[in-house]
Amino acid sequence: MSRGRLEIFSDAVFAVAITLLALNLAIPGPGHGPLAGQLAHQWQPFVAYLISFFTIGVVWVNHHALVSGFTVVTRSLLFLNLVLLLFVVLIPVATKLLAEYLTLSGFGAHLAAAVYGMVGEGSSASFILILEWALREGRMQSPVPPDRRRVARLRFYLGPMTYLLVIGAAFINPLLALGLSGAIDVYYIFEQTPTMVRGIARPDNADDG
Amino acid sequence: MSRGRLEIFSDAVFAVAITLLALNLAIPGPGHGPLAGQLAHQWQPFVAYLISFFTIGVVWVNHHALVSGFTVVTRSLLFLNLVLLLFVVLIPVATKLLAEYLTLSGFGAHLAAAVYGMVGEGSSASFILILEWALREGRMQSPVPPDRRRVARLRFYLGPMTYLLVIGAAFINPLLALGLSGAIDVYYIFEQTPTMVRGIARPDNADDG
Amino acid sequence: MSRGRLEIFSDAVFAVAITLLALNLAIPGPGHGPLAGQLAHQWQPFVAYLISFFTIGVVWVNHHALVSGFTVVTRSLLFLNLVLLLFVVLIPVATKLLAEYLTLSGFGAHLAAAVYGMVGEGSSASFILILEWALREGRMQSPVPPDRRRVARLRFYLGPMTYLLVIGAAFINPLLALGLSGAIDVYYIFEQTPTMVRGIARPDNADDG
Amino acid sequence: MSRGRLEIFSDAVFAVAITLLALNLAIPGPGHGPLAGQLAHQWQPFVAYLISFFTIGVVWVNHHALVSGFTVVTRSLLFLNLVLLLFVVLIPVATKLLAEYLTLSGFGAHLAAAVYGMVGEGSSASFILILEWALREGRMQSPVPPDRRRVARLRFYLGPMTYLLVIGAAFINPLLALGLSGAIDVYYIFEQTPTMVRGIARPDNADDG
Repeated sequence: MSRGRLEIFSDAVFAVAITLLALNLAIPGPGHGPLAGQLAHQWQPFVAYLISFFTIGVVWVNHHALVSGFTVVTRSLLFLNLVLLLFVVLIPVATKLLAEYLTLSGFGAHLAAAVYGMVGEGSSASFILILEWALREGRMQSPVPPDRRRVARLRFYLGPMTYLLVIGAAFINPLLALGLSGAIDVYYIFEQTPTMVRGIARPDNADDG
Repeated sequence: MSRGRLEIFSDAVFAVAITLLALNLAIPGPGHGPLAGQLAHQWQPFVAYLISFFTIGVVWVNHHALVSGFTVVTRSLLFLNLVLLLFVVLIPVATKLLAEYLTLSGFGAHLAAAVYGMVGEGSSASFILILEWALREGRMQSPVPPDRRRVARLRFYLGPMTYLLVIGAAFINPLLALGLSGAIDVYYIFEQTPTMVRGIARPDNADDG
Repeated sequence: MSRGRLEIFSDAVFAVAITLLALNLAIPGPGHGPLAGQLAHQWQPFVAYLISFFTIGVVWVNHHALVSGFTVVTRSLLFLNLVLLLFVVLIPVATKLLAEYLTLSGFGAHLAAAVYGMVGEGSSASFILILEWALREGRMQSPVPPDRRRVARLRFYLGPMTYLLVIGAAFINPLLALGLSGAIDVYYIFEQTPTMVRGIARPDNADDG
Repeated sequence: MSRGRLEIFSDAVFAVAITLLALNLAIPGPGHGPLAGQLAHQWQPFVAYLISFFTIGVVWVNHHALVSGFTVVTRSLLFLNLVLLLFVVLIPVATKLLAEYLTLSGFGAHLAAAVYGMVGEGSSASFILILEWALREGRMQSPVPPDRRRVARLRFYLGPMTYLLVIGAAFINPLLALGLSGAIDVYYIFEQTPTMVRGIARPDNADDG
């Protein structure tokens, strides 16, 4: 019941953020040159939209898998969850920024990509706070045994570690930074670590096909 | 429980998208000529609003009917569902584009209508991915028997097949494309295929009156 | 379960619409004259905001009371509910229009108030469609007995009948139209018709204090 | 069940409001000077964003703790809750106003900070209305005994009393007002009044760690 409300609030935030992403794709419209040309300039914003959409999607799926195994919801957890949401709602803003600067030369594009990477860093690092809360005693229906915690942690630490590379790559090539962000999405979409998944989430959510 | 969260997240996305549609109807306001004239120019955006509103509405009703019969929710299903949502959140953007170009002559209007059709194509085709996932063994409370699958598939394939016509019609007449989209809505609102509905959804949702 | 999803989707739409209302209050900001003056010009938009906020709030409370007594959810009901939502999401747009034109002299202010009244007419009339659906046999946990239906109908028909007056008043004085809309809110907030409420909603929702 | 719908609607409103906050951080974009400079001018809006984010977050957590203990949901409660939401949805608007005027000298900055404080005053004072409703007989699973009501009230009255200081501070220094608002957030995040919490919320929500 209490967990239910944590999930409803979080899902509503994820839903609003993921829908606002699409608004970034609006074009200037009539009076700003042929539509075909305007749409052709939208391919980079569109790729950024796709990658950010799945970034939020992956956060939602992982949040779902993690939270569904919790036996208690404490005041601390509610605030750790707010820290995660704080970064998730910045994703549409950072995506708009990146999309606007991606095609421009100069320092702006590098900086925009770095800001984009920092928002990803924040949201993936917030997940670790929630994981560490979850690993303490009495908080999960099927607690992760000590010898599997390393694997569980590895899976969650991989995100923030890779976003550090995204931030670094931003200063080399903004498109490389965006590509790396996309690779993080793909990893979490196709990632299959049965032992870990079984330890973290309940079987009815985890079995795949 | 797990299905509940899939439904809550999807419903929140549908709700935000359907509400953002209405924002496209905002007029320039004072200082842009008589209000009566501004409103008179809004009839095409208003028709586009109505049609897109029921497009999202139909997606919601069909999603409701389909998902309510699932016995499991797998990680794959969550991502197939995200693909559906990816297109649904583009509907307000594509509707705004169409509304802006509908009354203009030239290639822009044709292209805007084609983009609108492509978004509809994407959302209706995503439904097929979810249907095919559902038709595999052990996933529905009342599985569709093999001899009725053809009918079930037909109902879901009709949407994407008609949206191909919408895309084609866009290059003949944008209003024809919009009208065809409206016809797809009307089909799914009034569609009554008892055998199929009984196979797909639970009786308590399906009986109508 | 099925009713739950109808409620979640509707609540999400009401929530987005009611939150978007507040965005109409944004002022031009720095560089457009003293802030005190800008805020002073916001009192009419603020009154319009308050009235529309409680209009959506009343729709939510009444929807809650009515739907919580349903024993079935049919496909027809889902679409009748969509018709209601179609008008609810127009309330922020109509409120913005009214707020912009309210202080101007000329036909624009009358027309804007009439459009505002028509949106209210649409949303309150949609409720009647849902009521009539509900009054048919087998659809409510505590069906309204035939001799009380007149009272039940009266309560729901009062809204659309008064909105007709709002539309008429719009052409006399826009502020009168807005005031009448506020009066409809006040009526539904304080309305206490025990016999009727007991027939329509379950006791646990209806008892007040 | 009835309480569930109150929670879902409120959570959806909180979620939309908290996500809209982030949109205030959008920068002018290309053609308005170097991005580094534009971002540097965003630190005050960013601090305002952080503080308002946790203001809404605290409202959500406290709403959750309070409402989860209710045994009944009356029509009065629904409208008292709407009054709370009326102010919550104004938080993004007031935050945008404050962020725009914070760095400007002159009366505008003082006035913007005062408006910001008034919105906080409204939302925290609305909570008292809900608390007073809850303290009446038969409305909580674990009613607050008379001798603990003073402590319970104190906790809820502290918010609106401090926001009066925020409004006063606004006319001395807008940043001071913003800092005080942040202090209110911090108080409610770290506040631990075991006796009171045990009296107000159910143990499963209240135990922390």
